[in-house]
Formats: sequence, C-alpha cells, structure tokens
Amino acid sequence: MTIEQFIAQSEGSWRSMRSGHSLAFQQFEEVLSEITIEKIDKNEEGVIELYQNYKKNEVEVHIFIQPFKMSWSAESDWEPDDPSEVSSGNCIIIPLKRDDESGLLIRSIGYAESQIAQSNYQFTSDGTLVLKTHYEQSIAEERIWFASENVRCRSSILKTSEGSGILQTSFASEVKRISL
Amino acid sequence: MTIEQFIAQSEGSWRSMRSGHSLAFQQFEEVLSEITIEKIDKNEEGVIELYQNYKKNEVEVHIFIQPFKMSWSAESDWEPDDPSEVSSGNCIIIPLKRDDESGLLIRSIGYAESQIAQSNYQFTSDGTLVLKTHYEQSIAEERIWFASENVRCRSSILKTSEGSGILQTSFASEVKRISL
Repeated sequence: MTIEQFIAQSEGSWRSMRSGHSLAFQQFEEVLSEITIEKIDKNEEGVIELYQNYKKNEVEVHIFIQPFKMSWSAESDWEPDDPSEVSSGNCIIIPLKRDDESGLLIRSIGYAESQIAQSNYQFTSDGTLVLKTHYEQSIAEERIWFASENVRCRSSILKTSEGSGILQTSFASEVKRISL
Repeated sequence: MTIEQFIAQSEGSWRSMRSGHSLAFQQFEEVLSEITIEKIDKNEEGVIELYQNYKKNEVEVHIFIQPFKMSWSAESDWEPDDPSEVSSGNCIIIPLKRDDESGLLIRSIGYAESQIAQSNYQFTSDGTLVLKTHYEQSIAEERIWFASENVRCRSSILKTSEGSGILQTSFASEVKRISL
C-alpha cells in the first residue's frame, strides 16, 4: 500500500459508526456521521497557507502529494431522550512523502486539538496506516485500514503528553456509499 | 514481538469496554466485562483433548507453546431500562508456533461460533497480532495490540464465508487491573 493508493481508495462518501471509550470513567460514546473525502487543487488558498506554515519549521525534503479535504457531519450521543447535537466541520490535509512507507500529513485541524497538526505516518507490513501526532496536551495514535474495498476501520488512542496515561480510545467502522 | 512475549504481557485480569457495530442495521452494542488470562498446565485434560483434535487434521510441524485459559464475565447491553444480562464463559487456547512471526492458535471455543476453532496468527511489523479464523458460516479477522504496558486494544471484523460482505465489527479497550 502506498499513500497515493490509500487516498484514492478513501475518496468518496462514507457512513461512519464511531464508538468512543473513556477509560477513566468507563463511559461509552456513540456517534453516527457522514464523512466525505475529496481531492482538492494544490493551488487552492487553504492549501498554500497550510503548506507555508509547514515549510517554516521543516528542513527535511519530502515529496508533495495530492492534497485532499475531509468533511464530516455528525449526530452525537444519540440517546432517544437527548436533543441530538449535530456537529460538522472540515479539514485540509497535505500528504508529504518521505519514502514508500512513511511521511507526514499536515492537517489544518488536528484530530485531538483544534490547531494545525503535523502527523507522522507509517504503513505497517499489512497495509495499515499508522498516524502519530504530538499536540500540546496530548499524543494521538490513529490506525486506518481497509477491511474490504468499501469498509474502512479507524482506531485511535489518546495519551497525555507527559506520561503514558491513556485518556481515551475510539473505533470507527466506515461504509462507502456506492451510489455516489 | 513474539507469541511468548505477547502471552506474558496478556496474563492477568483486564477490565474491558467493548463496542459492537452492526453495519447493516447501523446498531451499536456496548459491553463491559472482566477478562482473565492465565497460563495452564499442558497436561490438563482440556489441553490434551484439544490438542488431539488438532493433530487429526494437521501435517505441518509446529512448536507447542505454553497453553492458556481466557475467562470472561460480561454485562451486556447495559441500558438503564434493560435488565442487564450477564454472560460468562471460558476458553482454552493452545499456541503453535510456525516461525517467529506466525503460527496457529487452537481454541476450544471460537470467537464467532461456539465450536473448536483454529486461527492463523501473524505479527505485523509494529507488533500487532492479526488472527484469521474460518468458521462454517463466517470468517473473523481480529487484531490485538498493546497501546501501553497496561492497555490492550482488540478489533474484530466478521465477514460472510461466501463473499466479502462484512457483517459486523467490534472494538475493545482493555485496562489491566494492577492490584492482582
């Protein structure tokens, strides 16, 4: 698996079921959402701004890969008695390739904290994409893999940045909408 | 990671939070349970019986590794209005090593169906244990990895045995009880 193949297979609209586990409080969270992943032009203003931000701090040479946008629209904590919260957003992602198995993803919004984030990615021997991101308060490790052509799984682990304390985990099962 | 190290690190008592996703029905399931993993004597009757069953169908030579027992006690579907179901059980597992990265696990009860099951295991480059099991009606793929010394994650994907249809997925976050 290469990052180009991975992005190509991820393109499209996905119906996501996501479970969050808060380990300290033994609490579950359930979220149904719609996720759309689409390629964007590398000359778009958002892409150029994001890339300039990265360039300031980085000396290593990477190959610039097709940027893409991830949009989501979620129905959170969908218990019958709860007024259902709807949250949505989007994020620009620029992949920068180091070699065939690894590189960086620059994201306009991070997974764990709402700031520009830089993730190291690495493919394992079975084609799983492993992302590691250092935030100010936390470290996130995400794994994304294809269970089949049209089913994608994503797990995440959030640790405190000081120690090895694990705050929460999550798992999402994503089914591609074939009609699009 | 070797299978011996993996079993040694898994030994103990774990508090598990498990989420199940039924993809066709977009339904979530939540299960809290207690899991205990302990080494057992290779001369125990259950181990000998299980091993004989395996020997009948197998010609390849494997190294017999320390067998262990997994016991669980679960509180299922813990919605406030539901009378909570408690299910429990246990399973003997014999690891048979092919080489440093792969081999078989013979289980007295399978993960997806209640019959003796034989799983192929393989470690990925980042130490994740990937198990594949063919049942009569389904194929299960499980991944187990350590997020830290005391936190273990397990994901599973269940497919129909005829095609590539994915029936359900699950994810468990397991925290080791340190006091034991």
